[in-house]
This record gives sequence, structure tokens and C-alpha cells, in this order.
Amino acid sequence: MEKRLNLLMFSGDYDKAMAGLILANSAREINIEVTMFFTFWGLLLLRDPEKIDMEGKSLYEKMFSTLTPKDIEQLPLSKMNYAGLGKAMMKEMLEDEDAPPLIAFLKGARKKQVKFLACKLSVDILGFKQEEFYPEVEIVDAKVYLEDALKSDIQLFI
Amino acid sequence: MEKRLNLLMFSGDYDKAMAGLILANSAREINIEVTMFFTFWGLLLLRDPEKIDMEGKSLYEKMFSTLTPKDIEQLPLSKMNYAGLGKAMMKEMLEDEDAPPLIAFLKGARKKQVKFLACKLSVDILGFKQEEFYPEVEIVDAKVYLEDALKSDIQLFI
Amino acid sequence: MEKRLNLLMFSGDYDKAMAGLILANSAREINIEVTMFFTFWGLLLLRDPEKIDMEGKSLYEKMFSTLTPKDIEQLPLSKMNYAGLGKAMMKEMLEDEDAPPLIAFLKGARKKQVKFLACKLSVDILGFKQEEFYPEVEIVDAKVYLEDALKSDIQLFI
Repeated sequence: MEKRLNLLMFSGDYDKAMAGLILANSAREINIEVTMFFTFWGLLLLRDPEKIDMEGKSLYEKMFSTLTPKDIEQLPLSKMNYAGLGKAMMKEMLEDEDAPPLIAFLKGARKKQVKFLACKLSVDILGFKQEEFYPEVEIVDAKVYLEDALKSDIQLFI
Repeated sequence: MEKRLNLLMFSGDYDKAMAGLILANSAREINIEVTMFFTFWGLLLLRDPEKIDMEGKSLYEKMFSTLTPKDIEQLPLSKMNYAGLGKAMMKEMLEDEDAPPLIAFLKGARKKQVKFLACKLSVDILGFKQEEFYPEVEIVDAKVYLEDALKSDIQLFI
Repeated sequence: MEKRLNLLMFSGDYDKAMAGLILANSAREINIEVTMFFTFWGLLLLRDPEKIDMEGKSLYEKMFSTLTPKDIEQLPLSKMNYAGLGKAMMKEMLEDEDAPPLIAFLKGARKKQVKFLACKLSVDILGFKQEEFYPEVEIVDAKVYLEDALKSDIQLFI
């Protein structure tokens, strides 16, 4: 029977998002089905930068939408404090190894049919709209996540 | 057979605690058994604010007990640095959606018979006492956690 | 059949590394097989401090190698901000309880035959070399991690 990987993407950190998306891409390459359920800061990964739309947002939602990075390459590292190792340095190190940037792993996951779910409660709280996400993103509640996770062979909270 | 969810709650962040408690509540609503094992900063979620007791604590334990938030609504966000999105702003956004605060999800989990375990080693290191926790909290070692996790269908480290 | 625990060690935080290594040691004591797959900051746990070698590293790799803590006891806490609870205070609290330091749990895990895997992509990006790690560390790709995780009964992302 087909094996399944389920990733709960809570974090919006560049390095953690990369860890999750590398796992998702690698899993698809060996025919493992992958579901990624994005919640809280993880939702920042799902926004289509071309489609951000302020209409109908509350003041806080507008502020949140304006102040958070629309380009996922601008997401921060989870650790900036190892003696000043900065994001710029990390990106240079990636380039030195010809490692693709985060956006390439996101594109790869989309192309490889990873299932993208977004947590309805988080979407409502943070004021996102369906139209702001990539079109394949489905907005679902925590029960849909749990049912998918129950069917999966590996579940991780990232 | 009954399905089981096992959450290892390491973090004492407001947003991560909320993610864990929303999963716990949602799981109980669809009849999944839930165990939450609290360790390190996660233990801050289990203290009954009415029952904090300094007697017999070492100087460091007293400092720790005094300086950490007794009211879980005061716990920090895991990210404060997305362009200044602060805790206050997040709480306003929760209220705008009529989303309950963290304490309501904790009360819900207690009412719905989520099993609360506390890690003995962490309890000892941080100087907590059984009487300071909610009465249903059981203090157990990592092996009890592992045995529960082995029987579970989903295990997450939050 | 033998039970298996699989830990993906992403974090290089002192407290999270301790949580992971305590689980690994406890699991071995009840005959659970343990694999730890180290990636990103987690790789800092695998360096043999006696064997750090700058030869052939790029400028960024040298900076990274020089600036990150070689002694794992110097790794930072994931939270320093709970009202100033610092690393020094945490270490005093550990000593008060005669709890072993992180390095003791790492030694225990090595002695108890925990399987140590290092993520090839992270090793390349951060510029580590096989000879800098403890000798039993195997450098493998994400697919080897996934295959091990699929065979495991518990999988956690730490």
C-alpha cells in the first residue's frame, strides 16, 4: 500500500520551511504521498505574492499583511544568534553549494502534487483570503488534518 | 479500535501551546484519545495559578517560579519579530474573530478528559511540586511517555 | 517485533537537544531501537571538538565553523527571554538536582548504540567534513531518513 507523509507546518522560518519542503520533495521522489497542513506562521508560505489583496481586511489584518514578508525568500531564520550568523551568510552558503533557494523547493512540491491544506482558524485569525493563496490550497479545519494524519505513516510538527 | 494522539509539549510559547491545545480539543471531539506529556517550558501550562507555593524551593527555583508567567495568557509568542507583530496585536486579532483565548482551550482539554502527564526530570529541575499543578496531572518519567507514544497513532513534538 | 524511535534533530538548542537525547537514552533502556537524523543546527551536536579542521573550507564555512560553539555545553537555550532566565541559571538548576549535563546524555546515546545519521545536504551547505564528526556518524540523504522513519513506530521533529 502507498506510504504517506503528513507535515504540520507551524513555523514561518526560512530554515524550518526548507527542512519541511526538502522532506516533501524527497518523499514524492520515492512515491510517498505527502500532505502539508499549514497553520499560524506557516501560512506565510502559501501566499501568492501576485495576489495579495487588502479589501475587506480589518486594520490589524492589513498591518499583518503589509508587515510580513510577501516574498518567502525574505522569511527569517529560526536562529540568527549563533554568533551573528545571518540570513545573508546562509544564503551565500546555499549558493556556494548550488543548493536551490526556498522558493525552488516550494515550486517543486507544487509540481510534484503535494497536497496543500491551510488551517481555517488560522486563516480567519490572520485575515487571509482564499484568493490570496496558490489556487490548489484547500482551507480545512483541524479535524481534516487529524484524519489525514491518522492515515499517514509519518507525522511531523515543524 | 480507538485511535490515539500523543503530544509532547516542550514549548511554553503562547502560539505553539494554542496549536497543541486546538489539536487536543479537536481530536477529543472526534473520539480520539489524547495524551499530552509536558516537559521543560511546557510545564508552565500546567500550573494552577491559585496554588503556587514557594516553600522548600531553592533560590533559583524561587526566582524561576516568580519570574515566569503564572497566568498562561501572559506567555510570549514564539515569534515577536515579524516586523513588530506583537502579542497584543495577536490577541486583538483573536478577539476580532471571537476565537477563544488559550486558557479556554486548556479548560476545554481538561473537561474533555485529555490525559495530562508531566515529565519528572523537568519537574525536579525547575523545582515544581505536584501540589502546584492541576490535580489531574500525573508526574511520570520519559519511559511512561514512550510507552504511551508507542501505542499512539500520531505523535508530535510541539 | 522490535520497536523503533526516529528523531529528526533540527535544532541546536541546549534544551531541545537535551529533550531529544533524554528520549533516546530512555528508549534504549527499554530496548527500543533509536535513529537520530541530524540536520541544520542539529549538526553542531555531532562535531568532535578535537577534530575540527579548517582545511579546504570556504571563507563562510570557516566563519561558521569558528563562530559556532565547539563545546556542546556552550549551545544556547531556545528561550532566554522568560524574564531573564539564563543559561547559567539553568545549568545551576541542573547541578542542584545532580542532573547530568548535555554531553553526558550524548555520551550515553553513543554508548547505547543509538544510530547517528547526518543530512548530506546540510553537511555540504554548512561545510562540515566527515572527519570532523564522531566516527560512527553516517552521512546520508533525506531518502535514507524517510525509509528509516517509515519503519519506525514513533517519529518526532525536534
